Amino acid sequence: MDVALNLPNHSYTIYIEPGILTSVGRKIKELDISLGLAISKVLIVADSNTAPLYLEEAVRSFQEVGYEAFQMVLPAGEIFKTAASVELIWEKALDSGLDRKSLMVALGGGVVSDLTGFAAATYLRGLYYASIPTTLLSQVDASVGGKTGFNLKSGKNLVGAFYQPIGVFADPNTLLSLSQREYRNGYAEVIKHALLSRSDLLVFLEGNLEKIESRDPWFLAKLVEKNVRIKADVVASDEKEAGRRAILNLGHTLGHALEELGGYKDYSHGEAVAIGMTAACAISLRRGLITEQQFARVKSLIEKVGLPTKPSSPVEPWVWWEKTYKDKKAASGVVYWVLPQKNQEGNLEFPFDHALFGVRVEYEEFQSVLDLLGE
Amino acid sequence: MDVALNLPNHSYTIYIEPGILTSVGRKIKELDISLGLAISKVLIVADSNTAPLYLEEAVRSFQEVGYEAFQMVLPAGEIFKTAASVELIWEKALDSGLDRKSLMVALGGGVVSDLTGFAAATYLRGLYYASIPTTLLSQVDASVGGKTGFNLKSGKNLVGAFYQPIGVFADPNTLLSLSQREYRNGYAEVIKHALLSRSDLLVFLEGNLEKIESRDPWFLAKLVEKNVRIKADVVASDEKEAGRRAILNLGHTLGHALEELGGYKDYSHGEAVAIGMTAACAISLRRGLITEQQFARVKSLIEKVGLPTKPSSPVEPWVWWEKTYKDKKAASGVVYWVLPQKNQEGNLEFPFDHALFGVRVEYEEFQSVLDLLGE
Repeated sequence: MDVALNLPNHSYTIYIEPGILTSVGRKIKELDISLGLAISKVLIVADSNTAPLYLEEAVRSFQEVGYEAFQMVLPAGEIFKTAASVELIWEKALDSGLDRKSLMVALGGGVVSDLTGFAAATYLRGLYYASIPTTLLSQVDASVGGKTGFNLKSGKNLVGAFYQPIGVFADPNTLLSLSQREYRNGYAEVIKHALLSRSDLLVFLEGNLEKIESRDPWFLAKLVEKNVRIKADVVASDEKEAGRRAILNLGHTLGHALEELGGYKDYSHGEAVAIGMTAACAISLRRGLITEQQFARVKSLIEKVGLPTKPSSPVEPWVWWEKTYKDKKAASGVVYWVLPQKNQEGNLEFPFDHALFGVRVEYEEFQSVLDLLGE
Repeated sequence: MDVALNLPNHSYTIYIEPGILTSVGRKIKELDISLGLAISKVLIVADSNTAPLYLEEAVRSFQEVGYEAFQMVLPAGEIFKTAASVELIWEKALDSGLDRKSLMVALGGGVVSDLTGFAAATYLRGLYYASIPTTLLSQVDASVGGKTGFNLKSGKNLVGAFYQPIGVFADPNTLLSLSQREYRNGYAEVIKHALLSRSDLLVFLEGNLEKIESRDPWFLAKLVEKNVRIKADVVASDEKEAGRRAILNLGHTLGHALEELGGYKDYSHGEAVAIGMTAACAISLRRGLITEQQFARVKSLIEKVGLPTKPSSPVEPWVWWEKTYKDKKAASGVVYWVLPQKNQEGNLEFPFDHALFGVRVEYEEFQSVLDLLGE
């Protein structure tokens, strides 16, 4: 299943197929020839989780079609999403003699692709980039949209660039080896997509709880495709986040703050976003943007996929609130929220409409809905 | 004197005027209003050389028109053109609460603008950027073209981004306080511009040697304008250096290698480029692209503005040659040269035509012309 992403100055395809990992080299070779890229060398960047599982296979797939392929392994984890890790990639690029016609390939989750994409955007002021996302989170989210970057000590994703790949290759088979926590991690973005688009994704999820549990590869391929289509649609309408793309931040402003408060250990990205999203839904409920039934339905689904709807240990509301101000989405000291809203025609197959964004929420309102997150 | 630079997605003006430094804030305010930028905050980045001379004045000029202006000072010098310096700017941006509507202003030479421009391109994936170049080199070269970035341990400008400012403000009065070495440093790019364009710049320089020496501000304004026009013309035709823009690398491939071999201390950028340019002219002479008289004329002008035409201490040719391979312009292990060529119609007012670029030169030829550089 291929999903095309058409941007004003750049178009590329997200290829979704069980087993595609073994033929990425050949797929790239086809792109190389059809687009006249003249790729000179390839550097594949994995992390210490993905390297033992897939790196050898990926390198071989490039060598089989005649590329000179270099490889490197970064330490795994959000705490390594730093300038220092990007520097390791730049230095490796230099040692490997990469030039402007070289290709950097990210093999792994969102951390690896954010770092590698940024390195590709900036080494020699930009060379070719492709990604092979291996987590559910990166297949449904990070792989699409061209956001790259890393964290500063006091805030997530504060530094980065918009940089688009020549292609994305999502192999649902790689999801079979994910830990339960990492697998669940991806469902926060999946549910987010269901809440901010007029799609049948929510119903699809509710009707496939068993396949979610058993990780059926063809179900997963379909799931990734549905998500990529939603995200590609939003991104294509607003590549640089000047407007509508902001709806993708649903649950993220509060979520980032929580991740940071937990030292990037207590909460995975998905867990933090799930909680932030529940809070956003609670505001929506309070404002009459969604019904009580809808709020309960979302909360129930979040719980059924194994994600939390409230912080695991009590967080002082004001501390949480204040932290959100430092998030990069806070322009001029104001935090803008994204709020889900119900389908205005009451269509049950597509329960939600495109979310509202740029909504101003004050501390008092935030505080007043916190008890809705869970007992 | 204003020079407009029109790029496909972005246009801006380079303002050249003695005394403009004191009214930069007002000029920015006019741009802010006319372009609807809604600038929120301003961070002015200077280096330890320029800060004592101009920082207070610059900050005041922004405050006078109502901007909240922050300031920071970086250590001066090419050896500080590193990722670590960019991190200092990112951290300062965070501490100052800059958002996507904020403006970063570079106040200083090419190092400050390369670092600040890169920080502006990447902080929050890009905010507004402007520059106030205070050296001759940065006024005639770095301020125009949108190249930003920094050095890795083993190579110059290996990391960077193309990022265009909202405006450039060149005040020739700031050139009066430059050391003699720093002032001369700028003339390498000036002579380079004369060699690669069909312009009267060479004749203009030869006819104004006294004013070069005395630093007449109106002469300098005219000089900067002529150079900016040449560079703007080249950049506008090829923003991302896919082709013709490569002619601006005349003298740079060998020059960068020499700078690095000298540990960024033995040679200023201009000194190294002057030597690299002389070597390129020697190849041009050997190939009959320019005449002996033209070669002697260029060499004489380089000497008259106080720049060298050969290394100050003997360099092993092979070591020098090998170092050029690591320069970022070397694609696929081949070094491409830019070679000046004479005006085909023998026009004495415009002695040179647009230079050739992408010329392959072998080591033997390089070695054979080295004795032409000087006795």
